[in-house]
Amino acid sequence: MPSSPASEVLTFADIEAAAQVLKGVAVVTPVLESPLLNQALGFRLRVKAEPLQITGSFKFRGAYNAISRIPEAERAAGVVAYSSGNHAQGVAAAANMLGLPAVILMPKDAPKTKVELTRAWGAEVATFDRFTESREEMGLKLQKERGATLIKPYDAPLIMAGQGTLAAEAIRKCQDDGWSPDIFISPAGGGGLIAGCSTAVRHLSSTTEVYSSEPAGFDDTARSLKAGERLSNDPEARSICDALLAPEPGELTFQVNSERLTGGLCVTDDEAMTAMAVAFKYLKLVVEPGGAVALAAAITGKVDCKGKNVLVVCSGGNADPDVYAEALKRPLAI
Amino acid sequence: MPSSPASEVLTFADIEAAAQVLKGVAVVTPVLESPLLNQALGFRLRVKAEPLQITGSFKFRGAYNAISRIPEAERAAGVVAYSSGNHAQGVAAAANMLGLPAVILMPKDAPKTKVELTRAWGAEVATFDRFTESREEMGLKLQKERGATLIKPYDAPLIMAGQGTLAAEAIRKCQDDGWSPDIFISPAGGGGLIAGCSTAVRHLSSTTEVYSSEPAGFDDTARSLKAGERLSNDPEARSICDALLAPEPGELTFQVNSERLTGGLCVTDDEAMTAMAVAFKYLKLVVEPGGAVALAAAITGKVDCKGKNVLVVCSGGNADPDVYAEALKRPLAI
Repeated sequence: MPSSPASEVLTFADIEAAAQVLKGVAVVTPVLESPLLNQALGFRLRVKAEPLQITGSFKFRGAYNAISRIPEAERAAGVVAYSSGNHAQGVAAAANMLGLPAVILMPKDAPKTKVELTRAWGAEVATFDRFTESREEMGLKLQKERGATLIKPYDAPLIMAGQGTLAAEAIRKCQDDGWSPDIFISPAGGGGLIAGCSTAVRHLSSTTEVYSSEPAGFDDTARSLKAGERLSNDPEARSICDALLAPEPGELTFQVNSERLTGGLCVTDDEAMTAMAVAFKYLKLVVEPGGAVALAAAITGKVDCKGKNVLVVCSGGNADPDVYAEALKRPLAI
Repeated sequence: MPSSPASEVLTFADIEAAAQVLKGVAVVTPVLESPLLNQALGFRLRVKAEPLQITGSFKFRGAYNAISRIPEAERAAGVVAYSSGNHAQGVAAAANMLGLPAVILMPKDAPKTKVELTRAWGAEVATFDRFTESREEMGLKLQKERGATLIKPYDAPLIMAGQGTLAAEAIRKCQDDGWSPDIFISPAGGGGLIAGCSTAVRHLSSTTEVYSSEPAGFDDTARSLKAGERLSNDPEARSICDALLAPEPGELTFQVNSERLTGGLCVTDDEAMTAMAVAFKYLKLVVEPGGAVALAAAITGKVDCKGKNVLVVCSGGNADPDVYAEALKRPLAI
């Protein structure tokens, strides 16, 4: 890959190195396909089933990759992270497995399941109001007080590299089956997952189109890609996709994504909930709202998929039971 | 394996032959494990995730194995099957993939999802009342009228052999990971799945204890094992586990199971529903009531699992959305 602004941040070699670190630790999650769903959709859809990852989402990959590189002298002071929940669990689990203490800053409105499971991994949980307090400032304060290492949720090369292992696995599995994606779609919040994934997909399957998918009101990546600069979301915006509420693209993630993405897609909360019900019916996979936005973009035709091979990432499954039950009430057209 | 009543019906070689037939056709479903669930339970639990099979349950394995052996001259007349739903979908999908017409007899009260998905596989569906009409008689009538081959749901060696591939895959995957089960538990209706599984487990992991699990009121296998003869269920019995409502053990399946099972376990509908909620929370796997009875037996301690390695089969995920939503309302002690 020639030198470029993106390659100064993240290369495929970084992803290969992360894959070595994660070997035997992270779950090699399956790629699912439903012939009946394909028939209903009119295209071949494959789903990288990351809810089956060790903490129920992809976030474990980046967190473990980053924490495993902390120098020996700094390990006893532990790690600190701020997260709506999936990064929290990823950091908590990785720190636990690597023997470091962890304190996690979580928003007060995070799904109960996510808070509970983060604590179950042995982490200390502190809460903040996601609409009135700065999690970055609180994170920095904790970091200084304790001397802990801050594990950023997305805007760090080791995090992006870890998340990118997901796409490398999926593309190679598909290629082993003699199947190649024309289109790849992944959810995007701060853009770490799609930065890692786009880097892997571009390297392993250069003709594949790569799209991010975001919830309405939080389509900062899509708008920033069009504008050629980082744009923020309206602070008043709300979405049920609690995993994807970053205020704007990361500086480093956007440096990668602005070069490696074909474009950005956007779905409504209702479309995300319908995609959860589709995954229930055809794939038997529990997907949370934010984890379902790439699947939602494919099945609602946000990019033309007809007759094509489409690979989407379902990125997490840590849904609150009441939200999930609500999603299942939707009548499905397919 | 020495000659015995069981080995006259089914040997491990039959399962190996079925595995060859299913290679590249059936999904090699993953074995899932949740460190947090292990921590909550006090033992190591692994789950063979058969809801991720092509038709959402293990039934595709046996059906494809049986239909693929139908002689060329008999294929045009197609196949007929009677089923509460999962065998229906298995037969419909296998017949579709092998190019044979299929007619399926389904009970009037089968979950809507199962009926709909059976039709989507291109099968003709006829209905019967499971409590007043004999599906066996109706099946035979259709078989005679059309000259079609009857694909029995469980009491046939090719069916049992196909289902047994599931356990062979799971045991080998665990052994590859350096993990060996002390206890293996699988759901049982007519006993085809556990007959195939017990044959595979006994061959590959001879010291592993093998148990069936059934819903209360339909514990015919457990009672028959104790009595040493086939006993029927009370015709008035009802259970939410629609996949496991066979009236009594099959003749051939019992010949296998009476020799190869350690014992039979039994769980309430409520325990099965709780197990569905546990699979949602910790495994992100959609499991239907009947598919969850082995998991339910393990987590409620129907056999002492403390400190042991326990491998359970979640056999299907074709749950109706309203039943599933009901299961998620349960408060979990873990």
